[in-house]
Amino acid sequence: MKNYILQDENAVYFECGYSCDNVIFLNISDEKYFITDARYEIEAKLFTKNCEVIVTNDLLKATRKILKKSKIKKISFDPNDFKLLTYNSLKHNLDIKFIQKSNFSKMKRIIKTDEEIKLIKKAMSLGRDGFKRLSSYIQKEGLGKSEKYLFFKAKEFMSNVGELDLSFDPIVAINENSAKPHALPTKKILTQNDLLLVDAGVKYKRYCSDRTCTSNATKNMTFERKQKFKTKLEQKVYDIVLKSQQTAISKAKVGMKASAIDKLARDVIEKSGYGKYFVHSTGHGVGLDIHEYPNINGRNDMIIENNMVFTVEPGIYLGEQFGVRIEDTVVMKNGRAEIL
Amino acid sequence: MKNYILQDENAVYFECGYSCDNVIFLNISDEKYFITDARYEIEAKLFTKNCEVIVTNDLLKATRKILKKSKIKKISFDPNDFKLLTYNSLKHNLDIKFIQKSNFSKMKRIIKTDEEIKLIKKAMSLGRDGFKRLSSYIQKEGLGKSEKYLFFKAKEFMSNVGELDLSFDPIVAINENSAKPHALPTKKILTQNDLLLVDAGVKYKRYCSDRTCTSNATKNMTFERKQKFKTKLEQKVYDIVLKSQQTAISKAKVGMKASAIDKLARDVIEKSGYGKYFVHSTGHGVGLDIHEYPNINGRNDMIIENNMVFTVEPGIYLGEQFGVRIEDTVVMKNGRAEIL
Repeated sequence: MKNYILQDENAVYFECGYSCDNVIFLNISDEKYFITDARYEIEAKLFTKNCEVIVTNDLLKATRKILKKSKIKKISFDPNDFKLLTYNSLKHNLDIKFIQKSNFSKMKRIIKTDEEIKLIKKAMSLGRDGFKRLSSYIQKEGLGKSEKYLFFKAKEFMSNVGELDLSFDPIVAINENSAKPHALPTKKILTQNDLLLVDAGVKYKRYCSDRTCTSNATKNMTFERKQKFKTKLEQKVYDIVLKSQQTAISKAKVGMKASAIDKLARDVIEKSGYGKYFVHSTGHGVGLDIHEYPNINGRNDMIIENNMVFTVEPGIYLGEQFGVRIEDTVVMKNGRAEIL
Repeated sequence: MKNYILQDENAVYFECGYSCDNVIFLNISDEKYFITDARYEIEAKLFTKNCEVIVTNDLLKATRKILKKSKIKKISFDPNDFKLLTYNSLKHNLDIKFIQKSNFSKMKRIIKTDEEIKLIKKAMSLGRDGFKRLSSYIQKEGLGKSEKYLFFKAKEFMSNVGELDLSFDPIVAINENSAKPHALPTKKILTQNDLLLVDAGVKYKRYCSDRTCTSNATKNMTFERKQKFKTKLEQKVYDIVLKSQQTAISKAKVGMKASAIDKLARDVIEKSGYGKYFVHSTGHGVGLDIHEYPNINGRNDMIIENNMVFTVEPGIYLGEQFGVRIEDTVVMKNGRAEIL
């Protein structure tokens, strides 16, 4: 692709090593333009690589001016990346064909460099530190606190009191609330031997981590994989999900289709009779965005390659009772999946 | 407007009293449709008013089906509200004219009901409580902490440890960092007699509060308007901004243009010789969104009416030195502005 335009913050960062929340990025043949407002001038000039930085209070006007001058005939863009209003203003009266290429930046980013993998590995390590701080807190003071309070504490301990950005708002869900894959925190109080699901991640130099733990809440609780639950049903479901997750990770191989990795996880749960309670995909890519490619689901025929990074996160959700999800982020290395 | 389509969460809430982050709302003559996925089924059926709730895993398909069946010829929508990809999928093969009406929901919401004003008043009161908790904390433990740490503490105390949603991420800025109207928190440490700017708000039943305080950081500090600063320049600039803000609030009247209220604030600062350092508008509407109509700036000829709610927030920003902004949210009542 010779000519393209982007405004998604992470897509722009990938192109030039710097980004901000008000930018249009142009690549025209071998020229790159970083168009932003005065707030970001100093950083943009310091940190963008091989870009002409253009500072303006009217980004669309400055972009149209460059496009007009360039005399190009066509330019690619992602229709997920532009609001209709922005798109209309941009192309108005320009004799340039705008070619829709959905998700082309995410496709470019699907195979991570070794440097990117190091950053995600570091983010995962910082994320595990956050889970440890959170479990220490719950051991001491967590029983008797509400989901909403613990949700805030999860943000405090994951971010190390604001030092790190979060990949997304954590999920903190007790018992029946954990049966919702995207539970929002309620006033429900955590009590001894409740089932507690926490899904959380942090960023390191803009790269995301993602991990989910399901635990038995006690004064000695941990977010480790070995767990002992109050009821037999909880323990049974937990053990099935853990087997599903570990099977998918140990048997995933380069050259498989994404759908085959989904099947590795799904087969374990289906054989145990809980297939219809595993209501989502097995995983998703992770990188600058928390949701990247490859999608690990039953419909994705994409071939898995070395240096792809994705989550493996099967779950079983029992309506009004409880849910279990276990998630790690893995990288494909030397043909196999390694937990990051 | 007889027929319209919305997907903005707050715009939909305004129409029917409930909303969620995955919804398409249709108004076709006198029929209202709330189209969402299974996660929101129970709440949507309980809380939406006069809507047919449609639960589907393909919102666009369900919407197209209703549109096709309706036999309407045209429908209005907001081009800020739809991504190009969504818009294209929606109108594909439909014999309906899509009419662009930018910001029509925000225009409908510009005059608040008395009930809405009560909710914003309550949000402002809860926001002031948050500022008080934050100042008590800073008195005891704030000196020696970084902006990033205090930023996190601002979220903790404003939200009352996760109980309330925030209107936006707070701004917490010390000395030269406060000279940036949209400062991001750094590792800079708060020390005795630093100038500290905090801009923060919370939500009550989805309605936002917004307030900014500039203070002198000491062990007796408050976020009240009466402040005594370390340097004469800080004090001079603070007193000018306060006079500007109080003048605009006391002289604002129903029947004025928005631009005339901007001028009330700007004139005080210009006469003091700091006009070129007041680099933004005087204010913005507040409601379900933190930025609504009316915009209070020099170009807006809209006539101000009773029950409009907006911020009054002049500021002076002295490059590498410091910035001062003072902000309250006001409602127009009986022809005059009242601080909420």
